[in-house]
Amino acid sequence: MPIVSPFELENLTFKIFKSAGASDEEAKIVAGHLVRANLAGHDSHGVIRIIQYIKNVRSGLTVPGAEFDIVKETPILAVVDGHWGFGQVVAKKSVELAVKKASENGLAAVGIRNCNHIGRLGDYTSITLENDMIGIIVTNSRSLVAPFGGTERLISTNPICVGIPSGRDTPFLLDMATSVHAEGKIRVRLARNEKVPDGWLIDKDGNPTNDPADFYDGGALLPLGGDVGYKGMGLGLLVDFLGGALTEAGCSSSKEYRTLGGSNGTFIIVINISHFTSTDDYKKRVNEVINNIKNSKTRKNVEEIFIPGEPEELNKKKRLAEGIFISETTWNSIGNIAREYGLNVTDWVNVE
Amino acid sequence: MPIVSPFELENLTFKIFKSAGASDEEAKIVAGHLVRANLAGHDSHGVIRIIQYIKNVRSGLTVPGAEFDIVKETPILAVVDGHWGFGQVVAKKSVELAVKKASENGLAAVGIRNCNHIGRLGDYTSITLENDMIGIIVTNSRSLVAPFGGTERLISTNPICVGIPSGRDTPFLLDMATSVHAEGKIRVRLARNEKVPDGWLIDKDGNPTNDPADFYDGGALLPLGGDVGYKGMGLGLLVDFLGGALTEAGCSSSKEYRTLGGSNGTFIIVINISHFTSTDDYKKRVNEVINNIKNSKTRKNVEEIFIPGEPEELNKKKRLAEGIFISETTWNSIGNIAREYGLNVTDWVNVE
Repeated sequence: MPIVSPFELENLTFKIFKSAGASDEEAKIVAGHLVRANLAGHDSHGVIRIIQYIKNVRSGLTVPGAEFDIVKETPILAVVDGHWGFGQVVAKKSVELAVKKASENGLAAVGIRNCNHIGRLGDYTSITLENDMIGIIVTNSRSLVAPFGGTERLISTNPICVGIPSGRDTPFLLDMATSVHAEGKIRVRLARNEKVPDGWLIDKDGNPTNDPADFYDGGALLPLGGDVGYKGMGLGLLVDFLGGALTEAGCSSSKEYRTLGGSNGTFIIVINISHFTSTDDYKKRVNEVINNIKNSKTRKNVEEIFIPGEPEELNKKKRLAEGIFISETTWNSIGNIAREYGLNVTDWVNVE
Repeated sequence: MPIVSPFELENLTFKIFKSAGASDEEAKIVAGHLVRANLAGHDSHGVIRIIQYIKNVRSGLTVPGAEFDIVKETPILAVVDGHWGFGQVVAKKSVELAVKKASENGLAAVGIRNCNHIGRLGDYTSITLENDMIGIIVTNSRSLVAPFGGTERLISTNPICVGIPSGRDTPFLLDMATSVHAEGKIRVRLARNEKVPDGWLIDKDGNPTNDPADFYDGGALLPLGGDVGYKGMGLGLLVDFLGGALTEAGCSSSKEYRTLGGSNGTFIIVINISHFTSTDDYKKRVNEVINNIKNSKTRKNVEEIFIPGEPEELNKKKRLAEGIFISETTWNSIGNIAREYGLNVTDWVNVE
């Protein structure tokens, strides 16, 4: 399996997007985002996406150089029309806009419509965290999840991401699908010819199933919560009603939702801690809670309790030191794209 | 079991709180809140709380006539010190303050500290809904929930409540503990001598248990999510970091948290739809999604898919027509309190 230096990988990714028509700024943002997703261990949101993104640029679904268009704006809120530019570019600028507003006024909300896949949400809360602000980001997508008690795909995996400054090396960073799992986990099991555990999936008739293939044959993901799945459904709908309805991006199951190429209707809330309490004291409070948990007794066979955000930091340390493993298939696809643009990929990759 | 008219019940509750030293305004707010909780079917947050609230007034933990003290304020945010007044009074006024700010500026956040039990969160989002605004309310409480992988009680059931205008008779109203269940459900099973299902509880050693008594013997509730319980833990911590840390109320597991009598550190976010999009169009979008779900195919043995908020509306219709059933024990306790204040309770209650 190819093991790639993150620095070389980012460089290659930058060159690919430049070759596809992105500006220096766009290519830098997208390449940095994808490689950081790999570093965090979220390979489903890493450089594997080059394949889809380049396809979308070539088909016209993604528009390099699209205007960052603020269609509504007050000192504390904004609605951005992304005009189908690179999702990462639109989302990054929108979060920066929200941080600027919150730095002045203590609180801000920014909605985004006409926006392509924005990738890993946790990458954006790192912007609020660098500014000692709480970031809450939600985004909708195409329907893959059944309502609680239903059989049809009517809700997206609608993730919720929250970044909280902790005063520790590792921030509190929750980045979760409101379904039991995101679709990527099903795809991995299918590729490995493995079953999925109980409670993840139903087949097209609404029966519980452990066969990942049933999902791709018209089945659906289940909302978070099992017997209390109305909670996962409710959280998923909240994401749709903020990211889809409030921004005019369209809710996942609605007629106005753009299925082709997908759409990430996004809503961002930024809270400036210093307008509510002392930021230093705030971090001490968060740190105390995390210490209480980290130092508490674990259940049998549990070595350590991980706070949301910790697994990503551990992956990052490891992968910065050891390089990023990329599957043969993905690497070949990326290599093919690179070669189409006349780029050289093989002289720096280690293959084991 | 006594069946009580909601109107008479509210009247009696009002008189009890008046007799205990509450002002007309305070007694009206608390009585209305408790009876509406019973009407919604959430008896654990209904008039049964009279017993605890009166005890807290008598011990000095709850202070009738406490000042509604806005300690920090800008056009879009505020921090309120409740000075241990009635939680319902402090919370209602804080939500009204947030609605006023959001009606002018599109968005607002209000935090509350030094606040007693505020009761059923869904009652407050009804205030934002009457104003065509989205309300998000979170509140923390004493620790009852183990972290994911842990055995100790370090997080509260930290509920999240979201009200969304839907353009239907019934709004979208999600009001959920971030644990699998709130403590009340365990208490009910214990009282009925019933087991609890798998996945609700661990005993004091961190082993799974179906015996509700194990919870009261040092066990803990489990966070929402089962195998992905880091999600429930993460959402619970979010509630603590907003309601407890940002407001200076104190996080559940912290040294500064007031255990005696409890404390509901509360954080309210109000979003004025009209500052983002047309409110009418917004409601149409929400209504379309709900219709898609309500009209979709159900799983075997599921008659109807309920949207969060619908069960409460159905209960309300039924109980307004038929009266509110109150257990003999609760009714006797309330009767004893009423008689201590020289109030007459028996001439209008129907006992079956």
